[in-house]
Amino acid sequence: MALESLRYRRGSLEVLNQRLLPGQLRYERVGGVERAWGAIRDMEVRGAPAIALLGCLSLAVELAGGAGPSEDLGALEEFVRQKLGFLLSARPTAANLGREAERLRAFVRQRVETPGVTPEQLRESIIEYIEGLLEKDRRDNRNIGAHGASDILGRVPGGGPVTLLTHCNTGTLATAGYGTALGVVRALHQRGSLSRVFCTETRPYNQGSRLSALELRHDGIPVTIIADSAAAAAMRERGVQAVVVGADRVAANGDVANKIGTFQLAVAARHMGIPFYVAAPSTTCDPTLASGRLIPIEERPGTELTHLGGVLLADPDVDVWNPAFDVTPHELITGGIITEWGVFAPSEVCRAL
Amino acid sequence: MALESLRYRRGSLEVLNQRLLPGQLRYERVGGVERAWGAIRDMEVRGAPAIALLGCLSLAVELAGGAGPSEDLGALEEFVRQKLGFLLSARPTAANLGREAERLRAFVRQRVETPGVTPEQLRESIIEYIEGLLEKDRRDNRNIGAHGASDILGRVPGGGPVTLLTHCNTGTLATAGYGTALGVVRALHQRGSLSRVFCTETRPYNQGSRLSALELRHDGIPVTIIADSAAAAAMRERGVQAVVVGADRVAANGDVANKIGTFQLAVAARHMGIPFYVAAPSTTCDPTLASGRLIPIEERPGTELTHLGGVLLADPDVDVWNPAFDVTPHELITGGIITEWGVFAPSEVCRAL
Repeated sequence: MALESLRYRRGSLEVLNQRLLPGQLRYERVGGVERAWGAIRDMEVRGAPAIALLGCLSLAVELAGGAGPSEDLGALEEFVRQKLGFLLSARPTAANLGREAERLRAFVRQRVETPGVTPEQLRESIIEYIEGLLEKDRRDNRNIGAHGASDILGRVPGGGPVTLLTHCNTGTLATAGYGTALGVVRALHQRGSLSRVFCTETRPYNQGSRLSALELRHDGIPVTIIADSAAAAAMRERGVQAVVVGADRVAANGDVANKIGTFQLAVAARHMGIPFYVAAPSTTCDPTLASGRLIPIEERPGTELTHLGGVLLADPDVDVWNPAFDVTPHELITGGIITEWGVFAPSEVCRAL
Repeated sequence: MALESLRYRRGSLEVLNQRLLPGQLRYERVGGVERAWGAIRDMEVRGAPAIALLGCLSLAVELAGGAGPSEDLGALEEFVRQKLGFLLSARPTAANLGREAERLRAFVRQRVETPGVTPEQLRESIIEYIEGLLEKDRRDNRNIGAHGASDILGRVPGGGPVTLLTHCNTGTLATAGYGTALGVVRALHQRGSLSRVFCTETRPYNQGSRLSALELRHDGIPVTIIADSAAAAAMRERGVQAVVVGADRVAANGDVANKIGTFQLAVAARHMGIPFYVAAPSTTCDPTLASGRLIPIEERPGTELTHLGGVLLADPDVDVWNPAFDVTPHELITGGIITEWGVFAPSEVCRAL
């Protein structure tokens, strides 16, 4: 069984504390929204889909445990709205949680307005709605994997097996299961069409070397880690044929916000003539943002670069610029954006969905 | 006074153990060639010029202490040849030590053939020759700094102050003093023409965040560290106007071997339309290598990426590709190669020198 970021059954939720990996494999109980907020903020869980699911599932756990008003529909609706607003304050860039929260609010509104619905029925229907998201994420990722694998094999001379390069972690540890960019890797491996995948270390949180390498080796998939700055050299010297990354947010024009370093990889891929793909569920698209310049970019503490597990990596008083994400302009996404509905040109993806 | 990698006076040599930085500032005694070999191999000292000087100075220290034959010119010559051959085995890519060793051998040969030279005179002349290298490196670096600063200010609209980006460490900690690429940074700062320099972390040894940031802050120069993968974003978002890096070896056609990640930075600079400079003393040029494809690239242990000061960064059994250097093709070195004699187009530099 794959390593999973979340373990859920009704009324019970556990999160794998990814800050302890690879040294320690520890699942921690999430009793409600407040604990989920902390896990998101402190990056115990990361990856836009997993963040969205953790947030929503923590609310489902609270509701299943009887939290919130039970006498009045409007009060229960307000309870849900406040919990969602609080969750959204944990990390500003991830689009999925915002999108899911908005949809959930709309769902609740519609249920509240349905004649004859009791508070108990409303509560039950919210829990079921959230549980459906978990199933949908897994199903979507398998579709992303299948579409991406077919598209890549169609573009590579000879039809594979292919050597890929990926960034950060977009696998079972970042989603409800299977993964987005790593879902494409898994799908190619399952078809016998993957030669090897290079994972960048992904400083400063090392999601590539800590997480992607761990979950891929766990599944027996051939993986090699490299320093972030060795990516262009790997493309040239080690036969990388395509780059596949995830996305935190896709703007209406197809610009993509993703883990810092994605832009640089796209520039290198363009220089080497290698197709560059973004794998993202349709919920990652935000048609309200005309271009990537409008996507807010979170800047994280400099200590992420100056300290590591008690080791001092730099003069602790030095100035640090530590953006968590960067924006890759759509014209560099030469392979396309892989969604659960198929592979689209970046400029068409939001319209098509 | 600047932080220096080497402290030398006749008969005495100390090396700053850079593996302990930034936490600990410790100079360690180098009694001879064997200790220097270990310091080079274990990267207590790094940077092609500092490696060359440490190796040669360790030999001078042995000679000043009376090591080697003192009765016979030929035996003393053979002693020197063997010591130099041993030093060269510590790290294969750095050109400077090889070049200096070759020149020293030629110098010794010529002295041995000079009529009337005694073994004692030969010994003294070798020590003086090596001491001259130390002075020459410092003088050359000041010239590199002056030429680079003038060229950059001539290219930047408005004439400065400029924002630069650099990689790895090429400063007082990598040379006998002042630095090569960081010599250019220092020269601009001394002219009041430096706005800020961004230093990449430079994984896996973190020479940028550990060393460059330390020595620049020590000299009061405005410096900001970034993750390696944030370089292209810094060029776009933070107004970087030129990139200046060092070199471990320059081939006859102007291709440059330098710290892993240099190629990727050059690709990003080209994409952003920012001039890309290599600062290198003329001894770094190796006209015997027609192109960069012939430069041997050292691959270092995977543990550099999986472990850090006792912290486990990755599954320890994962496959790692860890090249210490990459080759930047000459056409990407759009600013030029800055030497002690001036700034040259990459394809002309070896011929010109």
